[in-house]
Amino acid sequence: MKDVVVLSGGVGGARFTRALRDAAAGQGMRIRVIVNTADDMWMAGLRICPDLDSVTYTLAGVNDEQRGWGRIGETERVSAELHAWGIGWPWFTLGDLDLGMHIARTSLLRDGVPLSEAVARLTSRWDLGAELMPMTDDEVETHVVTGEGTMHFQEWWTRHRAKLPALGFDIRGAAEAVPAPGVVEAVLEADAVLFAPSNPVVSIGPILSVPGIREALASTSAPVVGVSPIIGGSVVRGMADACLTAVGTATDAAAVARRYGARSDGGVLDGWLVDLVDAHEVGELATRGITARAVPLWMTEAEAAQRLARDALALAGSL
Amino acid sequence: MKDVVVLSGGVGGARFTRALRDAAAGQGMRIRVIVNTADDMWMAGLRICPDLDSVTYTLAGVNDEQRGWGRIGETERVSAELHAWGIGWPWFTLGDLDLGMHIARTSLLRDGVPLSEAVARLTSRWDLGAELMPMTDDEVETHVVTGEGTMHFQEWWTRHRAKLPALGFDIRGAAEAVPAPGVVEAVLEADAVLFAPSNPVVSIGPILSVPGIREALASTSAPVVGVSPIIGGSVVRGMADACLTAVGTATDAAAVARRYGARSDGGVLDGWLVDLVDAHEVGELATRGITARAVPLWMTEAEAAQRLARDALALAGSL
Repeated sequence: MKDVVVLSGGVGGARFTRALRDAAAGQGMRIRVIVNTADDMWMAGLRICPDLDSVTYTLAGVNDEQRGWGRIGETERVSAELHAWGIGWPWFTLGDLDLGMHIARTSLLRDGVPLSEAVARLTSRWDLGAELMPMTDDEVETHVVTGEGTMHFQEWWTRHRAKLPALGFDIRGAAEAVPAPGVVEAVLEADAVLFAPSNPVVSIGPILSVPGIREALASTSAPVVGVSPIIGGSVVRGMADACLTAVGTATDAAAVARRYGARSDGGVLDGWLVDLVDAHEVGELATRGITARAVPLWMTEAEAAQRLARDALALAGSL
Repeated sequence: MKDVVVLSGGVGGARFTRALRDAAAGQGMRIRVIVNTADDMWMAGLRICPDLDSVTYTLAGVNDEQRGWGRIGETERVSAELHAWGIGWPWFTLGDLDLGMHIARTSLLRDGVPLSEAVARLTSRWDLGAELMPMTDDEVETHVVTGEGTMHFQEWWTRHRAKLPALGFDIRGAAEAVPAPGVVEAVLEADAVLFAPSNPVVSIGPILSVPGIREALASTSAPVVGVSPIIGGSVVRGMADACLTAVGTATDAAAVARRYGARSDGGVLDGWLVDLVDAHEVGELATRGITARAVPLWMTEAEAAQRLARDALALAGSL
């Protein structure tokens, strides 16, 4: 495998991508990561791109591993100022180091630089060992329909901790969005395409909803292999269950695979990794045209995560 | 004196205004400060308003008195990030606390809030004891013509320390600018108008260049009294001498007063405070219609600064 493309959301996808990079170290593998941007938002006049930043910080080794998000050694002096004025969302704190990224990115965007170019420029500061691509240069923002009104995904996710029952997701701007430069080419050129164990509804889902990306996945000669974000009927991290429930999909590894669908049947998956505890689902998925394999999915340590990445590559190689 | 208006630049004007407020404490005096905005700039996508911030921080008591600018207890974590990416001007460092102001202001401006309203909202966080008004809500930016090209005032002032000989100043946007709401009214209603000992060319000059403000000064019934920023042929602070030289005015208290001109002769001044060392200039200025008085001008301590403010009010009261 010389050319691998990963579809990724935030923290989970970041960890999987880091593991892939480290597992393939020295093998000359080109890794391109198509990152969800539908969590992005304008706040306090700044463009915030949570998933791009999570992947960047994690690959750069400057992420806060314990907290799970943001930069290590972070402080919140600027945020305290903004809160004193009531500027921005009081429940969404921006770290000082993180603000450097937001200000730099916003500055470039305001100058007319496309997001993909801004990402290339800002990530060039570190040797990430992977190329990050936003799914699109256009503004796409997921809004969540709830009984208390429709709100930006971040408000639902961060402020309400996804506890307000979601009635649906409106991925605004997706239908008119164009894949960022290189995204479709990356999928078509790849030796393998991997779906990180990211949220199927609000992370991988928006990527697939950008016209052209699903079509590229359908027509690429590369095998497409996903890693289940669900283990034994529970989410590995985050609140994907609340998202799945809203779209009528069970919180279950096989159910998520069925939601993606087999490429042979108009879907986007060839292979699917489930955890050992979900091994009983492998047979049923085979009847639906998805080659599943049961392996340990918990990325508890670097070694386990890298083994998972190797398992994903192995499954892709076998297809 | 129940209603006093001050025309102010940055640090010197801020100190004078603070002294005026403190000298008049308990007297029910309304103080409105018309602040120069021609030093303002866009940097890293943020709108920076150095003079407004200097006056705000000084009146709020959160300024760094020793360093002479910015916030006390300042850090530069965000700036270090921006510098790592080459975003912004490397010779212009933004403090973290200061960035809170820039982000908050820019956020409001991007939302369409006029600068004057943003200033009112942001300064309401503290009990300043004075109302700050930008000279205009329009973008005015001083550019400096030098032998090495024309550059933004901040580049000439901060990067080159005003050492590149200036051939002239282009106060861009001034001719089309409109005084901010309340500015003309404040001048017309005032019992006294005071020029802080700010730079006559690039601080007070731009305020006077906004159409309508000079006319208001000409027609107000209030006496207009200035404080010389020059003592014994030297600048009190900053590099006003480089600015005066560029416009053909000697670095001399009386020369600056002549530059402003007597109101009785189409200028903007009735009275002028010079330092004791410049007492010999009082007579000559009288022949030109400007009532000068020699008093100690050095604002070395709070007490001296407040005495100067009282001297300015006393001179105004005598006119």
